[in-house]
Amino acid sequence: MTYQALTPDTLANYLRQVPELLSLLGDMDALDIVEVGDGNLNLVYFVTSRSQPARSVVVKQALPYLRLVGEGWPLTRHRSDREANALQQFGARCPQHVPEMFHADSAQSLIAMQHLREHIILRRGLIEGITYPNLAEHLSTYMAQTLFHGSDLYLSAAAKKQAVADATNTELCKITEDLVLTYPFEDHPTNVYSLALPRAAVERLHQPSVRLAAAQMKWAFMNQAESLLHGDLHTGSVMVNQTDTYVIDPEFAYYGPMGFDVGLLLANLLTAYLSQEWHRTQAGQNPAPIQAWLLEQVASVWNGFAKKFIALWVAHDAHAGSSFMGNARDEESQSLFREAFVRHMFSDALGFAGCEMIRRMVGLAKVAEIAAIPYETARALIEVRTLRLAEALLLGRDDFQFISEVIDLAEECRTLTL
Amino acid sequence: MTYQALTPDTLANYLRQVPELLSLLGDMDALDIVEVGDGNLNLVYFVTSRSQPARSVVVKQALPYLRLVGEGWPLTRHRSDREANALQQFGARCPQHVPEMFHADSAQSLIAMQHLREHIILRRGLIEGITYPNLAEHLSTYMAQTLFHGSDLYLSAAAKKQAVADATNTELCKITEDLVLTYPFEDHPTNVYSLALPRAAVERLHQPSVRLAAAQMKWAFMNQAESLLHGDLHTGSVMVNQTDTYVIDPEFAYYGPMGFDVGLLLANLLTAYLSQEWHRTQAGQNPAPIQAWLLEQVASVWNGFAKKFIALWVAHDAHAGSSFMGNARDEESQSLFREAFVRHMFSDALGFAGCEMIRRMVGLAKVAEIAAIPYETARALIEVRTLRLAEALLLGRDDFQFISEVIDLAEECRTLTL
Repeated sequence: MTYQALTPDTLANYLRQVPELLSLLGDMDALDIVEVGDGNLNLVYFVTSRSQPARSVVVKQALPYLRLVGEGWPLTRHRSDREANALQQFGARCPQHVPEMFHADSAQSLIAMQHLREHIILRRGLIEGITYPNLAEHLSTYMAQTLFHGSDLYLSAAAKKQAVADATNTELCKITEDLVLTYPFEDHPTNVYSLALPRAAVERLHQPSVRLAAAQMKWAFMNQAESLLHGDLHTGSVMVNQTDTYVIDPEFAYYGPMGFDVGLLLANLLTAYLSQEWHRTQAGQNPAPIQAWLLEQVASVWNGFAKKFIALWVAHDAHAGSSFMGNARDEESQSLFREAFVRHMFSDALGFAGCEMIRRMVGLAKVAEIAAIPYETARALIEVRTLRLAEALLLGRDDFQFISEVIDLAEECRTLTL
Repeated sequence: MTYQALTPDTLANYLRQVPELLSLLGDMDALDIVEVGDGNLNLVYFVTSRSQPARSVVVKQALPYLRLVGEGWPLTRHRSDREANALQQFGARCPQHVPEMFHADSAQSLIAMQHLREHIILRRGLIEGITYPNLAEHLSTYMAQTLFHGSDLYLSAAAKKQAVADATNTELCKITEDLVLTYPFEDHPTNVYSLALPRAAVERLHQPSVRLAAAQMKWAFMNQAESLLHGDLHTGSVMVNQTDTYVIDPEFAYYGPMGFDVGLLLANLLTAYLSQEWHRTQAGQNPAPIQAWLLEQVASVWNGFAKKFIALWVAHDAHAGSSFMGNARDEESQSLFREAFVRHMFSDALGFAGCEMIRRMVGLAKVAEIAAIPYETARALIEVRTLRLAEALLLGRDDFQFISEVIDLAEECRTLTL
């Protein structure tokens, strides 16, 4: 069947022909099908049995253009294959935090997967001031499991090289290369500046030291094929409730620097932190508790990730016949390498966190917790604070020793004035 | 036709069926065909017209095993496709220093190319004490042209990613990963130690700081997909005479860190330098002039490469609509990035140079200029000097600012005693 963008009607017909989905959904003639996509790239349907609402799947279909921009920015549907591949890999590596994939159809650029009916997008929950007791524990596990098991530390050299070739994702990488790692650092027509954002704050991003650092992070993004990344691990790609955490939408997945996933997540926790003063004050609440909780998440996500990554590595080497370093097992060499390795991931994570925070302030795609602030001056103040923190992380990425230093800096930036 | 390892007789039959070669060689019934392979992986034939000896080609055919070890180390013939791809790319980027490829046959794992009849292997020439006036100029041009034009600094992001996927070379990379970057840094059964080499010299290679550095270089080799490398750019892969320089045998080609090619070449110039005292003294000559010339080559290869690489980059950016850094053209940002970029290539080059020198002393594959020294003590002395220089380059790779510091150190190591 040639590709066609499905409507609720044509989707119902399609589903009837897929035995896996037939058995999941039961009565195909009594389905509720509703389009809920708020993304830029895809149609997203919730498909639910009318008589048994627990029988439900999500169907995601790639569109041949970038929806936000419309048909003027064509994108091939190849990314759907990349997402199916990533869901399969991540699901095998960390099933408890990845939605189950039931069916993938390359010709239709379509994936049917677990419907997370009792979960909301993390970004939305954080804007509302909700805390999640397992969040850092789960996200650090997710990153450690997926990033370790995609790398040369775990896979054979041959399997890793095949995985790199299988994960080539040219078009979606290009979006990141341009919109995250290039345009925000120059006066590009796609940039969107808040009206009240002082010109001086924008011009700081054009400093040679900042442009150098951004170019180095872009080089790392394009050249360090370390592990299969989610590639877009912000708080809009995480679904949560008080017990569960799921990482969704890995269509940007490709082999890149491990610090990229970690950095994007830290960046979005930090924008959540810096935006809380406005959101809680608006709601007549004290922002301090959620601010403290968010900074705890920053610390626990990083520290948990580093600890679990090392633990997986140590356990794997103990179990396997040999390690990345060879057969000789002197503990000192191995410890030195592991420490230097984590140190390098930390530096990359902070550099990418800086780029992500900057692009979310001045680039095309914003974060709702800040973009939704309706008062220009209030919004610009938070943008300035975010930009200063971002700049310090990007330029100082090799100098930070501990995540506590990042947290101290975030607290300092929260008190900056325009 | 299914693959068969060709003999002179079956090769003659094969050549008759290839029109390109027919027109090059003229009379197919009056050919001299002689097998000259001294490599480990391939059959190599010189095919020459009896009546017109200027009509001549080299035919190289991959064997399905590593010849040095025999059929016990199987290797697929896939590497012949990798070599054909690399010869094509490098030939397009730097035709004056790459043998012309006339014909490639994937089914037979066979390549027919320009016969360099008036050239010898550089390693051989250096052992004999011959100097080559254009050597550094040519090799720095070759590296700048091939490495720049394979990278994200020149290619579109899409073309680069396709090129990376096309250059996957799992088996030959594994040889480097194991024999260059792992086994020499532990007591591995494939290592070969000279009888007179002090155990202490071997044990220095097992220091945690050395093993850490080797693991970091191995990680870079396996994860930094920066440009299409030659992958085995030692002095046995270069053919020279007093006017020309050709780089041959790119069967190890893959996308890796640019510093790898540079480092291997520098390493082999340095082993040539350290071996000259023995070779010239044996020949009743003063070693000082060729030693000075070899150190000049080390300096000129690096300085020439860095200068030409930057010049290609500047010219490309001036010509193209935009640069890797984007559309904004502030000179200071671009200069900072270029300087940091070259600095990073230098560090990688020194790290890989150190690994290459170490593996040539204690690993499976030796360099003839040292391995051929028949007196154990004389050979061990040069090995110890080489190992000390190698260790300093590997551990200090981030601290060297100029190639002159490397040369000072090489001179110092040349006077070490056992």
